[in-house]
Amino acid sequence: MPDAKLVPPPTKGHVSIARVSHAWYVVCEARELGKKPLRVELLGTPLVLFRAEGGKPAALLDRCPHRNAPLSLGRVVAGGRLECAYHGWQFEGGGRCALVPGLVGGSEARERRAPACATREQGGLIWVWAELDEEPTREPFALGDAPAGYTRVVRHVEAPGTLHATLENALDVPHTAFLHRGLFRGAGKRNEIRATVRRSADRVEVEYAGEPRPSGAVGYLLSPSGGTVEHWDRFILPSIAQVEYRLGRESHFTVTAFGTPVSDFVTRLFAVVDFRSPIPAWLVRPFLEPVALSIFKQDTRVLRAQSETVRAFGGEQYMSTELDLIGPHIWRLLKQAEAGERASDETSVEREVRFLA
Amino acid sequence: MPDAKLVPPPTKGHVSIARVSHAWYVVCEARELGKKPLRVELLGTPLVLFRAEGGKPAALLDRCPHRNAPLSLGRVVAGGRLECAYHGWQFEGGGRCALVPGLVGGSEARERRAPACATREQGGLIWVWAELDEEPTREPFALGDAPAGYTRVVRHVEAPGTLHATLENALDVPHTAFLHRGLFRGAGKRNEIRATVRRSADRVEVEYAGEPRPSGAVGYLLSPSGGTVEHWDRFILPSIAQVEYRLGRESHFTVTAFGTPVSDFVTRLFAVVDFRSPIPAWLVRPFLEPVALSIFKQDTRVLRAQSETVRAFGGEQYMSTELDLIGPHIWRLLKQAEAGERASDETSVEREVRFLA
Amino acid sequence: MPDAKLVPPPTKGHVSIARVSHAWYVVCEARELGKKPLRVELLGTPLVLFRAEGGKPAALLDRCPHRNAPLSLGRVVAGGRLECAYHGWQFEGGGRCALVPGLVGGSEARERRAPACATREQGGLIWVWAELDEEPTREPFALGDAPAGYTRVVRHVEAPGTLHATLENALDVPHTAFLHRGLFRGAGKRNEIRATVRRSADRVEVEYAGEPRPSGAVGYLLSPSGGTVEHWDRFILPSIAQVEYRLGRESHFTVTAFGTPVSDFVTRLFAVVDFRSPIPAWLVRPFLEPVALSIFKQDTRVLRAQSETVRAFGGEQYMSTELDLIGPHIWRLLKQAEAGERASDETSVEREVRFLA
Repeated sequence: MPDAKLVPPPTKGHVSIARVSHAWYVVCEARELGKKPLRVELLGTPLVLFRAEGGKPAALLDRCPHRNAPLSLGRVVAGGRLECAYHGWQFEGGGRCALVPGLVGGSEARERRAPACATREQGGLIWVWAELDEEPTREPFALGDAPAGYTRVVRHVEAPGTLHATLENALDVPHTAFLHRGLFRGAGKRNEIRATVRRSADRVEVEYAGEPRPSGAVGYLLSPSGGTVEHWDRFILPSIAQVEYRLGRESHFTVTAFGTPVSDFVTRLFAVVDFRSPIPAWLVRPFLEPVALSIFKQDTRVLRAQSETVRAFGGEQYMSTELDLIGPHIWRLLKQAEAGERASDETSVEREVRFLA
Repeated sequence: MPDAKLVPPPTKGHVSIARVSHAWYVVCEARELGKKPLRVELLGTPLVLFRAEGGKPAALLDRCPHRNAPLSLGRVVAGGRLECAYHGWQFEGGGRCALVPGLVGGSEARERRAPACATREQGGLIWVWAELDEEPTREPFALGDAPAGYTRVVRHVEAPGTLHATLENALDVPHTAFLHRGLFRGAGKRNEIRATVRRSADRVEVEYAGEPRPSGAVGYLLSPSGGTVEHWDRFILPSIAQVEYRLGRESHFTVTAFGTPVSDFVTRLFAVVDFRSPIPAWLVRPFLEPVALSIFKQDTRVLRAQSETVRAFGGEQYMSTELDLIGPHIWRLLKQAEAGERASDETSVEREVRFLA
Repeated sequence: MPDAKLVPPPTKGHVSIARVSHAWYVVCEARELGKKPLRVELLGTPLVLFRAEGGKPAALLDRCPHRNAPLSLGRVVAGGRLECAYHGWQFEGGGRCALVPGLVGGSEARERRAPACATREQGGLIWVWAELDEEPTREPFALGDAPAGYTRVVRHVEAPGTLHATLENALDVPHTAFLHRGLFRGAGKRNEIRATVRRSADRVEVEYAGEPRPSGAVGYLLSPSGGTVEHWDRFILPSIAQVEYRLGRESHFTVTAFGTPVSDFVTRLFAVVDFRSPIPAWLVRPFLEPVALSIFKQDTRVLRAQSETVRAFGGEQYMSTELDLIGPHIWRLLKQAEAGERASDETSVEREVRFLA
């Protein structure tokens, strides 16, 4: 029985959930996958990760074909096989059942597969192709190593929001002065910012001009030679959010966050931070992480409340303004990808927007 | 998948839930609403209360029209506007969006309302009209101040029952000897009571005659001049339960409880107790509250168990006797009000019932 | 809204749940039912047990016909009647309402029954016939007393699995070397075992031959005269799992577990253990219980995970081999019983299977 309502609250009866399969997602950091199998969830489906023969990461549906026990309760045995905890069936990285203990006479040969996903390990991350028993049609986003002179930090967090809401939040500028008041942009004097939105087949980029230099000593330390702030925000299909800042010649800061749709209302972000500045890394790092976590905690709180509200009302009722520079583009790209469509490849300056921040 | 059942248990597949909108309900005590916004729920719909310009209480749908964050996460800023915590949109008490921070050039003028409910503050209570963006067609129940010589106590509690079950419980006499054994009516010698039921367009009243005076010293202290017990129970639309006792000339005790349908199975009761007796108020009060809370705790336990049973069986299967004097009348009045009907206004003595209590 | 999925995972959209009513189940040990009413659940339906006139166990639907309060909140009063906690209605063991307090003039005679189940108390267990207001067509399984020279231990546990999954687990041999590695069968040298499966109208039995004697001192102590291991596993409708071991002439061990379908995914097991061995009972008992509980804890863990996986995928996708000697037979017998069918009564040796254990 549904709860009473004052009136049917006006919603679109729709939630911004796009389920893009046939794509690469990061499911864990490489260091998280050791000798024990690891259960993860991707697009609502439980998978078990383990290191198969030669240490190569493997991903199987986390359900034994025999009696449906989760394979993640088992252990990895000799030869990089995953052994089910219940009856000891053994599976290879590709999903083939190599042993049913107790069976007499060659019956191991029969077809008793566990469905498997393709995997890649690169840049300290483990990627899974979001489709069972399918050959990937491309390779994961090539991150590359941190450039010489840069420091790299890798962290992941889990957000209680849809992939769309979480990525929009990560790339949205106007909320920072309110949700992160005091931590990030201040609520002081406002400057007119000029934003240029560029969209191409698999991405959208916003370039900001007119942002003020950090004031006082911090600004001087980051860029003794002077110079202006340059800032780009990018969304790249299927789920990458990238924020890049330059301050003069000396300071450069890029966060590349790989979003993973765990389930409809849970999104993981695997963030790779590369930075270079005149302030030594050993001095930056002790500040960077606590501040980033404080910001993320505030984002988490609002994303959870947003999810709960959308669910309580049975759908969204969003009203955008021209300040919502990137969210609607992310949504359109996600829906096209979900439908298997692909926009044309030519880049076009979509528009220029001026606002105060 | 439903749970197994021995047999389809016989239910009416119906729960006594009436959702009466277009009516006034108390949502909080006035002292609860200070500088911070307050989230409440009414008929299953989340509302945010705050004090708008001049301290006037305001009630908006608790969902920002921009990105659906709950407005109750925000704060009240200068001019009595409610500022959303996510992007800082500001709303007036009537729901008009007065500011979208960052927008350049007059765009604040556009229509970006949050739906609003009419409110009243009177008698230490805050009332909300249970419909969005609608002008009330009448005023809330006029409680008035406590008469001279009376003491008033205001308290609220939350019951895990439907509005109907909670109000029937509040006005039901026969359960007191069992559920509140020892605290309230004893299980000692029973007296024959004569109950007269009167019903009119918006209420039902039961008058009891024949109830025994409290025995011993308490009876003497409450009414040194002697005199009999007079007792009325009343239900008044949409959700008021009133219990009135007189003992001789000296003692008089009235509880007026305003029921608020928070959601289908959660009801708040805002109780206003007015009393006068030869025993001084400072001596009565230390006993009144603990006893009332003990009684309510027992009612809560049975209401929760009743709700769980009704839900587990998929509906109610009530069987009434002539001792159920008031519950069926409450139900009929609630259903008429829900349907927008109104009974004729003439009062009629419905019937007289005799029973033992 | 359903969670996203990589692909619709291949399931049969079916869970092995059989709801066999018109049958006897154990609902508690006799010693658990004292002066207070006891709430139990059977096939998803809440029942209240109490000792009616003469101490005879009674079972009523746990819902008062008046206002649907659970009768289990009440108390047993003089004459072995169950009194509802809310308004004091009194019910006899057979379900008849014997008193509505307060009613004037013979109105107790009216029909206000609580539906009742037939009960039996025997062998320290209380049995309930799984149908309301129905005369049983047979008697419960006759367990009898422990034979002379045997020690009996009675215990019950609750498993988070369907009746079928729990009984299959209780009677399944191959999982013991994996799930109970170290506690039960070792993973050492494997022997070829010969299993003979016999099925009749209401049961299936597997007889094992070729199992090795326990090694070393334990084997000698259990059977100083030598002799081989004999082992039978039996399922008997509607829900009995029996495991019997003999070692030579001296040691004999039988567990008879009565399964109770509490709800679809919760099964209780009432286990009666009878044993005899040259090792004195006072020396065996301190080991028996902790080992049994350790084994059950491992079974519980995998049954819970299996239930969760089956629910998450919306059904089972089991793949059996010839080592699944008894589970498929249990399933067929349960489904026949659920449908009210009865197989023919002649016993037939179904087949002989050889495997390594």
